[in-house]
Amino acid sequence: NMTDLENSLATIIDVFHKYSEKEGDKHKLKKSELKELINNELSNYVGQIKDQATMDSLIESLDTDGDSECDFQEFMTFITMVTICCHEFFEHQEDE
Amino acid sequence: NMTDLENSLATIIDVFHKYSEKEGDKHKLKKSELKELINNELSNYVGQIKDQATMDSLIESLDTDGDSECDFQEFMTFITMVTICCHEFFEHQEDE
Repeated sequence: NMTDLENSLATIIDVFHKYSEKEGDKHKLKKSELKELINNELSNYVGQIKDQATMDSLIESLDTDGDSECDFQEFMTFITMVTICCHEFFEHQEDE
Repeated sequence: NMTDLENSLATIIDVFHKYSEKEGDKHKLKKSELKELINNELSNYVGQIKDQATMDSLIESLDTDGDSECDFQEFMTFITMVTICCHEFFEHQEDE
């Protein structure tokens, strides 16, 4: 009997693992895995990322422990950024 | 054509507003609203919060701008904490 909110948090965890498992360290997203995740699962919110420079600076901004990969805590920072942006977008629409 | 992950982020925003709208500032959760949200929407993950002291210390730890309410950014900090805890719980289960 999970609620919608609980299922949503489980979905975030599932999607992270679906991509982190693919190659190398199964508990971390490497740059190509994060790019694929964004382009397949978040493109309506974030757009398609095509150039390498954008991915380089995104991974660099998220990678607080300096291992050039994105662990689950770093991924949640990204999810938080995206959700706050969406939230602000919807608030502005409401005001108009 | 939203993905599961995109719908999950939209659900987080919707649930926040469902409770923040109830009383006072419509863009912030007051203590009673956050308590109701946790007890109705997250009790499988967080448990039921019954005592006032637990709510007091939770709101205090989230309330980075010191207004005694929980805005959307502060709420996302809480959601991140809960999701990271769930993620760690599932990882430990996997290892056993």
